[in-house]
Amino acid sequence: MARSNKPRRGRPPKGSDPAYSETRLSLIRTGLAVLTEKGYSYTGIDEILKKAGVPKGSFYHYFKNKEAFGEILIDAYGKYFARKLERWLEDTSMPPLQRLAAFVEDAGRGMAVHEFKRGCLIGNLGQEMSALPESFRNQLTAVLQDWQQRTCKCLQEAQQSGEMQTGLDAYEQAAFFWIGWEGAVLRAKLDQSTEPLNQFAAGFFRLIKAT
Amino acid sequence: MARSNKPRRGRPPKGSDPAYSETRLSLIRTGLAVLTEKGYSYTGIDEILKKAGVPKGSFYHYFKNKEAFGEILIDAYGKYFARKLERWLEDTSMPPLQRLAAFVEDAGRGMAVHEFKRGCLIGNLGQEMSALPESFRNQLTAVLQDWQQRTCKCLQEAQQSGEMQTGLDAYEQAAFFWIGWEGAVLRAKLDQSTEPLNQFAAGFFRLIKAT
Repeated sequence: MARSNKPRRGRPPKGSDPAYSETRLSLIRTGLAVLTEKGYSYTGIDEILKKAGVPKGSFYHYFKNKEAFGEILIDAYGKYFARKLERWLEDTSMPPLQRLAAFVEDAGRGMAVHEFKRGCLIGNLGQEMSALPESFRNQLTAVLQDWQQRTCKCLQEAQQSGEMQTGLDAYEQAAFFWIGWEGAVLRAKLDQSTEPLNQFAAGFFRLIKAT
Repeated sequence: MARSNKPRRGRPPKGSDPAYSETRLSLIRTGLAVLTEKGYSYTGIDEILKKAGVPKGSFYHYFKNKEAFGEILIDAYGKYFARKLERWLEDTSMPPLQRLAAFVEDAGRGMAVHEFKRGCLIGNLGQEMSALPESFRNQLTAVLQDWQQRTCKCLQEAQQSGEMQTGLDAYEQAAFFWIGWEGAVLRAKLDQSTEPLNQFAAGFFRLIKAT
């Protein structure tokens, strides 16, 4: 078969080599799938290489070490999820709180597709933080703050449109949402059901909606 | 030194041997400390034996295997925490919602003592459920349901005393509390602060308090 289409093995490939980029991306995609399921500490590089169909020993052509790989995964997941939030929370065809409700529904569908095995990479890594490289802490916090900021913007719009109580601090409520949401994702994995996501969202909306 | 005071090594000790019980308890205590910090999957039996000062190879005198040990730890933690909830939530010297607030404060102090390295064993294991023996799922759910039931009782008393809105379902609100609380514990570990616990609790009380 066309061996030239595959990444070069046994020596560092060039940065401009499309096969290099493709293999690197495949390792990142596989890493995200495995880490959203099992977290960082318990996941071996070998498992990711095997699942990605990349030969053992190739990892260090693409990443400095497991820690550097972890940092790239946190960054990739943070950005992927930021785009997801952007898609839902900035969709002005819906009123602001309906956008957040649509995000919750989408998240439930996403978890169901993966049979509630995959959770949130940031939640998984936050949970196992004591066993992680200390460098991950600021990175994880920054991702959550970015998501909170995006949620805050949506809540401020909900206040402007009269959907949400104006006496509340939108950023504090966005922080509350993300604190509880990570708990809801954890519980959805345990219960193998979207119910905890919906229960948490229902409580949150009741908490902030204008009466 | 008095070797007879130490557990017998190299052969199964008798169930009635006090040294046997003591070593077994020490392994459970150490297991709880390590698993509340690092979870189940990543924790090796060797690490627990080393920390407990029990010689390698002795583990199987006390427990059938790692899975059986895990089941015993979930049970022990569930009961330990049920006693803690009982102490706070059934302390009739305080009004019901103040008891729950006192539990939240106590939990914050507990996390601070361990420098926010240790979280909730049930939350940790729920998070890594996809990598755990399937038998743990029902056990973890049963523990959470027990805690929810205890919290529900306290909330019902708060409704009777006029502190909490009577139009709310106390069990549903207790479920909301535990869904979000596990997220707050996770975030407290990440932020190394009691702030997420307090933020979540403040939102919860605002949600349920009678106006």
